[in-house]
Amino acid sequence: MKNILVGQSGGPTAVINASLYGVIRAGMERQEQIGHIYGMVHGIEGFLQGRCMDLGKELSKEELELLKITPAAYLGSCRYMLPEDLSAPIYPTIFERLKALEIGCLFYIGGNDSMDTVSKLSRYGKSIGSEIRFIGIPKTVDNDLVETDHTPGYGSAAKYVAGTVREIVLDASVYHKESVTIVELMGRHAGWLTAASVLARKQEGDDPVLIYLPEAAFDMETFASDLKRALAKRSCVVVCVSEGIHDASGRFICEYGDQAQVDGFGHKMLTGCGKVLEHFVRERLGVKVRSVELNVSQRCSGMLMSATDLAEAEMAGRKGVAAALEGETGVMIAFRRAERGPYGTDYVTVDVDQICNREKVFPTEWIGGQGNDIGQGFIDYVQPLIAGEVVRPMADGVPVYLYRER
Amino acid sequence: MKNILVGQSGGPTAVINASLYGVIRAGMERQEQIGHIYGMVHGIEGFLQGRCMDLGKELSKEELELLKITPAAYLGSCRYMLPEDLSAPIYPTIFERLKALEIGCLFYIGGNDSMDTVSKLSRYGKSIGSEIRFIGIPKTVDNDLVETDHTPGYGSAAKYVAGTVREIVLDASVYHKESVTIVELMGRHAGWLTAASVLARKQEGDDPVLIYLPEAAFDMETFASDLKRALAKRSCVVVCVSEGIHDASGRFICEYGDQAQVDGFGHKMLTGCGKVLEHFVRERLGVKVRSVELNVSQRCSGMLMSATDLAEAEMAGRKGVAAALEGETGVMIAFRRAERGPYGTDYVTVDVDQICNREKVFPTEWIGGQGNDIGQGFIDYVQPLIAGEVVRPMADGVPVYLYRER
Repeated sequence: MKNILVGQSGGPTAVINASLYGVIRAGMERQEQIGHIYGMVHGIEGFLQGRCMDLGKELSKEELELLKITPAAYLGSCRYMLPEDLSAPIYPTIFERLKALEIGCLFYIGGNDSMDTVSKLSRYGKSIGSEIRFIGIPKTVDNDLVETDHTPGYGSAAKYVAGTVREIVLDASVYHKESVTIVELMGRHAGWLTAASVLARKQEGDDPVLIYLPEAAFDMETFASDLKRALAKRSCVVVCVSEGIHDASGRFICEYGDQAQVDGFGHKMLTGCGKVLEHFVRERLGVKVRSVELNVSQRCSGMLMSATDLAEAEMAGRKGVAAALEGETGVMIAFRRAERGPYGTDYVTVDVDQICNREKVFPTEWIGGQGNDIGQGFIDYVQPLIAGEVVRPMADGVPVYLYRER
Repeated sequence: MKNILVGQSGGPTAVINASLYGVIRAGMERQEQIGHIYGMVHGIEGFLQGRCMDLGKELSKEELELLKITPAAYLGSCRYMLPEDLSAPIYPTIFERLKALEIGCLFYIGGNDSMDTVSKLSRYGKSIGSEIRFIGIPKTVDNDLVETDHTPGYGSAAKYVAGTVREIVLDASVYHKESVTIVELMGRHAGWLTAASVLARKQEGDDPVLIYLPEAAFDMETFASDLKRALAKRSCVVVCVSEGIHDASGRFICEYGDQAQVDGFGHKMLTGCGKVLEHFVRERLGVKVRSVELNVSQRCSGMLMSATDLAEAEMAGRKGVAAALEGETGVMIAFRRAERGPYGTDYVTVDVDQICNREKVFPTEWIGGQGNDIGQGFIDYVQPLIAGEVVRPMADGVPVYLYRER
């Protein structure tokens, strides 16, 4: 199949490099079929600017093993959409570059938008009769890709959320005083990550007692009464919310603060919904309140990497190479969960056109309470995804990661 | 010595329970001298309200081992200052309660304010000829206690900061675009925790390239030129700042945003300095900018617990019991570092009056650059404190911690 090319795109995750590792390792194991293993630096955008590296040559064996457990995106990433119009001049440019490097297959590791890139390139390729194959490897902490049981990156992010919220609950409960702690979690449209905070509970009815996802309309008055009810039962209440919660009209809660908040230069302050709710609670309930935004650590921390997630991410990369060698193109590797018996994953290929530009939201049947809780169905779904610990190399007291020379 | 009583006070840390464990274990090992080991629930405040537990009886052997590696404050905490006037009626009340429980020694695990409590109780006790002993066990992530090389809790918090900032640097560097990431760290008056972010660098000159502590006056214009210089050398710049940075006049940078920021109810928004700087950078430099506040996880996370810190925290508790049995009172256990040879700690006792209400700021000779960097002196100081990994028990993919029944 000549040489292969692999790129990473979209936001970082704890295990996106494990998928890259899977592609590289599988490529190396098929030396009779695969020549060079090139990496795009900064995705398709960097590739267009000529940034490329020879992964098979430039990484030592030790570096390759370190790559596997290094979070973020080793090759660098981009957020770059190819034009809808396949007659745009950028397409022949890309294919000339691919031809110059004698590329037989391009692997693109990413989410929705990255699958759109795979779709366009494979459709253009077919239109000109090119034999180059294009394979998508799924990746997103948001877990919002359709046609797959879950996505690599989600398990580790969910585990980080569960473990960190458990610690925040411990922290929030040390004082005797009535208090509310609001934890804002990632998820603009889909509540998958926020839902994982349910795993922080040591038992049912425990903190976080209230969990709100974007999939259920959020109402400030209902929130106030939910809180009052919770505070009547316990003095310390922990609430988890998705950044993207919105009211029934579709207006984001984080926008509630916008009009009033301007910075020292008269510009609108962009504040998260956690801060907006914090101020609301202080005003309405008069209790001690704090908001915590977990921020980028949710997606880039390797501290609570899931061994299951790590293994599946690598396997997604390996299965991508296998699919390409079998002649597939325009497909993404997807996960199918064993329907009965112990947890297990089958790897299949799905037409990328079915995946790109679609979003898998959190199933409403898994939202419990009055839109403020998460049901057992989700717990059963997510539990295996966060299972297993990864031992990380440490030096001088800090985790050792692989860095690309810049 | 009859029974002993132990309490926790002030903010949580990753290892405050290891000190509690040290007191309990040392107490159990001296059964010939010590009867019951009581715990105050919610510190001296809860004790005054009659909240107490029998730690020697109520904790199983397994729970005791779990207690050791559980972050936050198992017994609950308080922020409660005893009156300056030792003739206040609260003092006889406390001593009657201590007498009723036949307490021979009270151990109070905490920071500055907690040592103030130890001081007042021991002074009052001496004034009435009481034989009850009062021992302070140091604890604070701020590392701001005088008369001790460092404090339990700091090593783990510093390690968490170093590891997390290293991951944020990876995350911040994935895109090719010019960007600034501002990480706001704990430390209102002392920069010890923020300084630990220097350990996130893989080599000198690496991100975080700019580090600002409260010990050096912060100037917005100097910050802008520091940033411009840094951006000329690299596209992604990571900056770490203490929450308490202030200008030469003493005005906190977080207050710069106050006047303009009001919430939807017309109230002032309390925003961290990270957000203020984020808006300043967007306005002045026009680059992509993000601010991240690590928040409570710095103090309560057990994810990057330092084995050195954990062992020293336990030892501080044990040495407290030993000091009490030797008849000491009105003292705090302090750490003395071996002056030469490999890292080692001696445990001594120091008069609490020398400690309470004083603050150890970060030495200015360890601040490098033009007040925007950290020198090698600090790196040599802090490196041993974050050394060593702690394996934590996990169940269902999340850390297992000990909870007090509420």
